[in-house]
Amino acid sequence: MKPPVLKDGERLDDLQLAGLYIIQKIKGFRFGIDAVLLSNYVKVGKNAKIIDLGTGTGIIPLLLSAKTEASKIVGIEIQKEMAEMAARSVEYNNLQHKIEIVEGDFLKATEIFGYNSFDAVVTNPPYTKSGSGLLNPEDLKAVSRHEIYCTLEKLISISSRLLKSNGRFFMVHRPERLVDIFYYMRNNAIEPKSIKLIHPSAGKPANLVLVYGLKNGNPQVTVEEPLYLYQDDGTGRLKQQVSKERGF
Amino acid sequence: MKPPVLKDGERLDDLQLAGLYIIQKIKGFRFGIDAVLLSNYVKVGKNAKIIDLGTGTGIIPLLLSAKTEASKIVGIEIQKEMAEMAARSVEYNNLQHKIEIVEGDFLKATEIFGYNSFDAVVTNPPYTKSGSGLLNPEDLKAVSRHEIYCTLEKLISISSRLLKSNGRFFMVHRPERLVDIFYYMRNNAIEPKSIKLIHPSAGKPANLVLVYGLKNGNPQVTVEEPLYLYQDDGTGRLKQQVSKERGF
Repeated sequence: MKPPVLKDGERLDDLQLAGLYIIQKIKGFRFGIDAVLLSNYVKVGKNAKIIDLGTGTGIIPLLLSAKTEASKIVGIEIQKEMAEMAARSVEYNNLQHKIEIVEGDFLKATEIFGYNSFDAVVTNPPYTKSGSGLLNPEDLKAVSRHEIYCTLEKLISISSRLLKSNGRFFMVHRPERLVDIFYYMRNNAIEPKSIKLIHPSAGKPANLVLVYGLKNGNPQVTVEEPLYLYQDDGTGRLKQQVSKERGF
Repeated sequence: MKPPVLKDGERLDDLQLAGLYIIQKIKGFRFGIDAVLLSNYVKVGKNAKIIDLGTGTGIIPLLLSAKTEASKIVGIEIQKEMAEMAARSVEYNNLQHKIEIVEGDFLKATEIFGYNSFDAVVTNPPYTKSGSGLLNPEDLKAVSRHEIYCTLEKLISISSRLLKSNGRFFMVHRPERLVDIFYYMRNNAIEPKSIKLIHPSAGKPANLVLVYGLKNGNPQVTVEEPLYLYQDDGTGRLKQQVSKERGF
C-alpha cells in the first residue's frame, strides 16, 4: 500500500542513512551519484548555516542533515512541483527544524537571506551549457540537466554574494568546465582551494569534478587523489569503497 | 679521460635516446623528470617551429629533436653560462641545423622572432613564486627554481604573443598553481585544452601537472588519466611505464 505522503507517480526511496527516506518521481529526474559524492565532499563546522542552490528533490539537504553538524540547511528550488515534493520529504523525515525548502529563483536569494549570510554554499547544477539543443523549460528533467534558468557564471556570482568571508563553496560539475569554473570563481572572490577528480575507471579521463573554494581565500589549490568509480572487471559494479561512501 | 668538449665541473650524460648526450654541471641544476614528462607530452605536426622558453641545459630541445618531426627548435636562456653550455651540447650532437640556442631574455623574444611566429611554445619554468625567500639571482640553481626573472603571468603573456593562431602551448608546473595557470591562459587567449596530473603514487595528491593549451581555442578542457610515478612497494622505484617514457 502506498504511504499517504505520496502523490501519483511518486515513490519513497530508502537512503539507507540515518533512517532517511526521499520522495522521487517514478518517471523523472532522480538523484544520481554526483549528489552523493558532493554530500560526502562537504565539510562544515558545527552549527554551520548551509544553502543548496537548485536543491531539486532535496537530496543534498537530506544527506547533509546526517553527514554534518550544520544547524540550518536551506534548499532553494525554482520548480514549484519539485520544491513541494522536497518539502514533503523533509516533513516525512521530521527535519523541518533543520531543513528549510524555499520555492524560488536562487539568483534572487540575497533578497530573501541577505548578503554574506551562509557559512557554506553547496550546488549540483545542470551540467549542459544553455543554448546547446532545443529544450522545453517545462520539462523537469531538462531543467535539471541544462543551464536553462542560470549560467555557471551567474551561479558562482550569487554564491559569492551569499557566502560570509571565509565561507565555503562546494560544487560538483563536469571537468570540461574546469577552466570556466576556476575563472568565474576567481573573478567572484571564491578562490578554489581543492579539487577531486572522479574517473569512471582506470585509463579513462575524468567525467566529474568536486570543487571546494573559499571566499576571499589565498591562491593555492590542491589536486587530491582521484576517485575511480567502477571496478575494472567490466561488471559495471561500483567499487566497494564507493558503495560505502554512497551510504545507501 | 674527459672529452674535450667539457669544461671544469661539467660532465657528459647519455640520454639513452637516439644516441643523444647532454652536458651538465656536476654540482648544479640538472634536468629532472619534469622536463622528460613535458617532452613526452608535446605533440606537434611535421616541420613545426617550436620555442622552449628558459631552456636551461637545452634538455627539452634535445629530447624534442628526437621525439617530434619539428624542423626548428629554438631554446632561449637568460643565463649566459647555461646558454653557452646548452649550445655546446647541441654542437656535440651535431644538431645545429635543427636546434638554435639563443642567449637572452625570453620576455623580449618577440623583438627577435616577431609576433605569431611559432607553432608551439614549450616551457618548464621555475615553480616557486618570486618574493618567497631570500635569493641570490647569481645562483644558477635559484634561477631555475624561482620566478626571479619572470612571473608565471608574464611567461604566459609572452607565449601567447609568440604563438600563431591555433599554435600549441605546453607547460609543466605545480598543481598548486592550476588556478593561476588557467586564469592567465584564458586572459591571454591561450585556452587550456587538456591537463594531465602526475601523482608520486596512489593515495597522494598530484605534485606536477602537464598543461596543453591552444591559442584562440574554444573553451573545453579534458582531464586525462593521471600518471603515478613511483611503485607502491616503498622501494622508491619508478613504475616501468614511466621508466620507458623517460627514454633513458
